[in-house]
Amino acid sequence: MKVGDRHWRPIWREADGGAVGIIDQTRLPHRFETARLATVAEAAHAIRAMRVRGAPLIGATAAYGVALAMAEDAGDAGLARALDGLGATRPTAVNLRWALARMARRLRPLAPADRAEAAWAEAAAIVEEDVALNAAIGRHGLARLRQVAAARPGRPLRILTHCNAGWLATCDWGTALAPIYMAHDAGLDLHVWVDETRPRNQGAALTAWELLQHGVPHAVIADNAGGHLMQRGLVDLCIVGADRVTAAGDVANKIGTYLKALAARDQGVPFLVAVPSPTIDWTIADGLAQIPIEERDASEVTTVQGRAADGGVVAVQVTPDGSPAANPAFDVTPARLVDGLVTERGICPASRSGLAALFPDRA
Amino acid sequence: MKVGDRHWRPIWREADGGAVGIIDQTRLPHRFETARLATVAEAAHAIRAMRVRGAPLIGATAAYGVALAMAEDAGDAGLARALDGLGATRPTAVNLRWALARMARRLRPLAPADRAEAAWAEAAAIVEEDVALNAAIGRHGLARLRQVAAARPGRPLRILTHCNAGWLATCDWGTALAPIYMAHDAGLDLHVWVDETRPRNQGAALTAWELLQHGVPHAVIADNAGGHLMQRGLVDLCIVGADRVTAAGDVANKIGTYLKALAARDQGVPFLVAVPSPTIDWTIADGLAQIPIEERDASEVTTVQGRAADGGVVAVQVTPDGSPAANPAFDVTPARLVDGLVTERGICPASRSGLAALFPDRA
Repeated sequence: MKVGDRHWRPIWREADGGAVGIIDQTRLPHRFETARLATVAEAAHAIRAMRVRGAPLIGATAAYGVALAMAEDAGDAGLARALDGLGATRPTAVNLRWALARMARRLRPLAPADRAEAAWAEAAAIVEEDVALNAAIGRHGLARLRQVAAARPGRPLRILTHCNAGWLATCDWGTALAPIYMAHDAGLDLHVWVDETRPRNQGAALTAWELLQHGVPHAVIADNAGGHLMQRGLVDLCIVGADRVTAAGDVANKIGTYLKALAARDQGVPFLVAVPSPTIDWTIADGLAQIPIEERDASEVTTVQGRAADGGVVAVQVTPDGSPAANPAFDVTPARLVDGLVTERGICPASRSGLAALFPDRA
Repeated sequence: MKVGDRHWRPIWREADGGAVGIIDQTRLPHRFETARLATVAEAAHAIRAMRVRGAPLIGATAAYGVALAMAEDAGDAGLARALDGLGATRPTAVNLRWALARMARRLRPLAPADRAEAAWAEAAAIVEEDVALNAAIGRHGLARLRQVAAARPGRPLRILTHCNAGWLATCDWGTALAPIYMAHDAGLDLHVWVDETRPRNQGAALTAWELLQHGVPHAVIADNAGGHLMQRGLVDLCIVGADRVTAAGDVANKIGTYLKALAARDQGVPFLVAVPSPTIDWTIADGLAQIPIEERDASEVTTVQGRAADGGVVAVQVTPDGSPAANPAFDVTPARLVDGLVTERGICPASRSGLAALFPDRA
């Protein structure tokens, strides 16, 4: 999508072929900086430190990480080490495992000498497929947005989203934001409520920045405010992304998603989850019992990063010295609270039968 | 309550009799500073700028503000100006109106020359009554905490609270925290989950600081995390304060309270609201329709105050330049989601009949 006048993706193979370029998402919204990842260790670190994040982009970065590893050691041991190391970076997003399994299937049968180039090609294929999936999600979501807007003529369609499920979370378009970008481009009158999304503020830092770059009207709100806005009739629709969706439609997503789904149900606001099929974990049904929830460092809660008056980006401590903090990074929204899964094949109920009807080849 | 070795209250009449002292709550948790309010204008500013906050403490500060005004102009015009000016500082907390109405009833019949000393006395009475109300809330709440703990033997009682309803929000003890302090002092094994409470972080800055000073085990969490903790069975009870409760039991409290009440109901966790009777607005029933919700400045959302590495307390911007923000300061939790109101007269259902049974003289 656009940054200023230029089209960017959040990840690319560098022109010299020997490294991967990324937009360093830990610097946004205050600084737009790119970084060069030249080794598998750098790719793993970028995922763990959340220089790249978002389930689809984590998968793409891991795939490129395997390609970087093959330049270092394309033997079976090197391949196994790369898969293990990248697989241990983040536990919740299933796209990571999905992408690594796909790379393994592609590379294991090959002679080591053929693996590096095949890895680059496969990673590029994963990226291009992700862009196509998200564009399809955008088209299906746009149709739903038009329906909701048509039922509320004469004023902007007000959409609430949580965390960042925009183009920065994917290889382009985004998942939850893809329908919003397409609706805006089609001239639909929109207003997006952007949950700040503490502790890492992906909403305030990334979603707001994306929407600003694209000219989509929006306002940032504290994570606490969404329920109140729904009570007052100021939200027509919620749409979020997902880090993992079970075969029964339970949704693991950024911490706090469950609270918004509860409010949406209580207030009769449709709650949609945009999910490309690589985010669906067909092997499990019960999200609460079976999805591992990453516990991240307490410092993400005790401090906040922002831009100081002198322009420098610094972290400030918001808690007293000596107060501990807990930091679960995701929660699980039960399928019963989800009004629809927006996939590349269309929108289905968040249920085993709903998913199976759209994906009979996989369910 | 204790700060270090000394007992403090958050407001007092200065020894020289001509001013009011406060703990400046905008400096906590990083700096413990007091401030001297010598004029009604300074008292009004302290309320508006949230140097003092919390429904009961706002009421007490307004009462002292009237006393300061009487030293400047004790005539009818001066009294009316003070009541109007202080009454306009914050719209949601009913204690403000309650305290000002009480001061007006006490002072209007008096000759101007007698008003200043009567105002100081009435303000002091309001403060002492608040302390007694909160102590009674603490005793009733403690009995409920003991019941819940007895049903879950062998591990700490885990309590979630939102915002700050501790001694800093009142004249001493606190409302929601009073039972917690009494339980801790009585040797009950407790752990408190402290919601950060964006945008102003009263949980991270004030509740955590209070609990730390008193030695109560706790952990700060992002506002997004409470639903997840309840899903995982890690919360035994929620207790919060209130800025205004209607005669039918609807609860206006810090933005985000409604979301936690929804999660508590969804997960079967008891949700209690600690409310001294001056916080009850007997004139209204429907909280959503009848309680004005303060919209505060967008800068509270776009920036976060904290302590930088050099020790200085600074505000950092977390949003991109150009992104607007919305900042509703309170929400309304419908009575149907509240399992009990903890008042100075006991615990009652959040309903018109429940409140009327405890307060037949006022309902």
